[in-house]
Amino acid sequence: MRVELLSVGTELLLGQIVDTNAAYLAGKLSELGISVYHKTTVGDNAERLAAALRISLGRSDVVLATGGLGPTEDDITAAAVAEVMEVGLVKDEATAERIRSFARFRGVKLLDSLLKQALVPRGAQVIPNPVGTAPGFIISRESKTVITLPGVPTEMRAMAEQSVFPYLADRVEEGAASVIVSRLLRIAGMGESQAEAEISDLIRQQTNPTIAPLAKTHEVFLRVTARAPNRAAAEQMIAPVEAEIRERLGGHVYGADDESLEAVVGDMLSDAGLTLAVAESCTGGLIGHRITNVPGSSDYFVASVTAYSNDTKTRLLGVAEDTLRQYGAVSAATAAAMAEGVRTALGADIGLAVTGIAGPGGGTPEKPVGLVYLGLADDSETTTEELRLRGDRPMIKERAAQMALYLLYRALRARRPQEVLG
Amino acid sequence: MRVELLSVGTELLLGQIVDTNAAYLAGKLSELGISVYHKTTVGDNAERLAAALRISLGRSDVVLATGGLGPTEDDITAAAVAEVMEVGLVKDEATAERIRSFARFRGVKLLDSLLKQALVPRGAQVIPNPVGTAPGFIISRESKTVITLPGVPTEMRAMAEQSVFPYLADRVEEGAASVIVSRLLRIAGMGESQAEAEISDLIRQQTNPTIAPLAKTHEVFLRVTARAPNRAAAEQMIAPVEAEIRERLGGHVYGADDESLEAVVGDMLSDAGLTLAVAESCTGGLIGHRITNVPGSSDYFVASVTAYSNDTKTRLLGVAEDTLRQYGAVSAATAAAMAEGVRTALGADIGLAVTGIAGPGGGTPEKPVGLVYLGLADDSETTTEELRLRGDRPMIKERAAQMALYLLYRALRARRPQEVLG
Repeated sequence: MRVELLSVGTELLLGQIVDTNAAYLAGKLSELGISVYHKTTVGDNAERLAAALRISLGRSDVVLATGGLGPTEDDITAAAVAEVMEVGLVKDEATAERIRSFARFRGVKLLDSLLKQALVPRGAQVIPNPVGTAPGFIISRESKTVITLPGVPTEMRAMAEQSVFPYLADRVEEGAASVIVSRLLRIAGMGESQAEAEISDLIRQQTNPTIAPLAKTHEVFLRVTARAPNRAAAEQMIAPVEAEIRERLGGHVYGADDESLEAVVGDMLSDAGLTLAVAESCTGGLIGHRITNVPGSSDYFVASVTAYSNDTKTRLLGVAEDTLRQYGAVSAATAAAMAEGVRTALGADIGLAVTGIAGPGGGTPEKPVGLVYLGLADDSETTTEELRLRGDRPMIKERAAQMALYLLYRALRARRPQEVLG
Repeated sequence: MRVELLSVGTELLLGQIVDTNAAYLAGKLSELGISVYHKTTVGDNAERLAAALRISLGRSDVVLATGGLGPTEDDITAAAVAEVMEVGLVKDEATAERIRSFARFRGVKLLDSLLKQALVPRGAQVIPNPVGTAPGFIISRESKTVITLPGVPTEMRAMAEQSVFPYLADRVEEGAASVIVSRLLRIAGMGESQAEAEISDLIRQQTNPTIAPLAKTHEVFLRVTARAPNRAAAEQMIAPVEAEIRERLGGHVYGADDESLEAVVGDMLSDAGLTLAVAESCTGGLIGHRITNVPGSSDYFVASVTAYSNDTKTRLLGVAEDTLRQYGAVSAATAAAMAEGVRTALGADIGLAVTGIAGPGGGTPEKPVGLVYLGLADDSETTTEELRLRGDRPMIKERAAQMALYLLYRALRARRPQEVLG
């Protein structure tokens, strides 16, 4: 069964609100195993709404429309659906009565506009609204169905959960029915195309589960999606594919689903009983901010020093003036000295440091914008890493922070006793 | 001129991400006076994408498509546009060269998939991507135009602003259109309903411009929107309404449009020739991160110390152990000592400090989650402020950081010679 989504509302076309309804409905429908291939938005215009309904009904079995069911004059969804389905509008007495008692209860005047909401296409099955006055409805004709829901998210969700999802679940033929389950593998330290290249044969071969790469500003996700009769079966199909991807990408897969890199690193620090201190320059506090987003981070996070000036690098972190003079603030030597300095100054087990040029100013031919050095010091050694990052100032900050956390992740992984692979 | 939006990506149809790109583009186009009547989403499927393009080109002059331009196999937008426009794909040499130099600069392997991004429909005008590898393009045929942009929001926005909006603005016929212009007034230190109550009569009376409140996690916006024949006329209509709002809300209106609080405060520090040092506890580095998001902040921002442990508060900031013992880490006395300490330790003109309980753990009946103290020290005095914030851990961090920056804003405002009101 093909369902498509139709969002009605001029405010969506003016960009005044983001269409979270459509994302919510799409997610729920895919969990029910229903394929959604199209999503359309039109404004509060009768002609264009009717035309959009005809296009949608031409290619899908069910059109799930949200919005345009309220009391105002630009709420035209019921009339447009009636026109396209070639039936008239009739007053639904049960709805009218609910609206009257709502007006009494709330002490508001019973305006005609309120009662207009009781008008539905002839033959429609009314979907009651438990939290507002505008009802939705379901109407079918010649194997095509239109379902309407109000656009107010709380009302839409309540009605979708109470009435629409059960209705659609019943219509998804038994046996043919399936659910879609996704697992998100989170990748650090490699780009989207590089990750894809490592598993391109898997991506090509796999049809169920499918594997899809997804790039964010500072990280890459691989989404493994299975379609199966039920969740347990889908998870069983995903497991071997996930294992194969993890084997090929090794330590680049740092987590799955909601596990952020800072949470994973936090757990590793906790488990190992280690404390962390951070010295930031170009990231400006972002690493500390991310680490402290994790509840309980005060157990392992000692402090972060954002040393923007050379003077602070010397004063708070003990970076030798010689080092700054000889190699410059943006150098491997300074990154190493910052990592060692913050570790010593704060009495932490591990010191992590970042220094670089986030731009837009401050770059030179030898040290361009995007040049970043990372340093990591523990009780036995200090390592540094050079990065050349692209993007604007916020992107360079985000990417540098991510790579610093990834360096910490690898260092913590290397400390752990080798895991035995089954 | 009619423009419509086409979002390409299966993840949008699965509800895995919300389509913020479409809302952004719709808002910007309406500011340009361009009518957007349709917005469509299709997945990464060649046949359905081509069909959707044909429907869109049948009713609009320009289709602005986002997504599906990356290096992976399910990135099919360029091929689908070429098919619908009945031209072949050709390699754009300038783009290929940019991709090669990107690979060299980053030291990544030059994969075929990366170079695939240089394939554009024959005759297309390439839109360079200043922050990534996937280019966009503009292609016209028989008075119909398709514009494509990548789906990664940062890349899409950069390219839309640099290339697409100017292109479309040129095509909007002079005189024929009316434009919609919005001015966003940014409010700090008062909630949405409080702000609305102060100007409720204005909101009711105004029809053009309209005034709409808009609440974000840590701040409130008032959007003043005018429709007029051209931008200058719209701005003239907005000006007196803005002046009235500013008069009623006073110093709560700290900026407009894209002026973030950190940028406004940065300009004030620059103008006054003052330097700033920050001591953070519960905000974990977020204040430093926000301040350093502003280009040129190294001119006035000395350093930030995130002192999570009592030991660090004493060691780096010189907070007396007595103060911590007597009043606790979350207290006005500690906030004051942190502000004074960071100011002295780093030799800055102003010290700003935050200490509090972000939760979810760590609260007590006397000191509940959400209790936050701010401190601000300059050469003449130290002030503190107590906040009781609501929300989860990230929200409390965001709100505390905002209120700290707002405290700094007020202190800097108070230092300025009284402005003469006309």
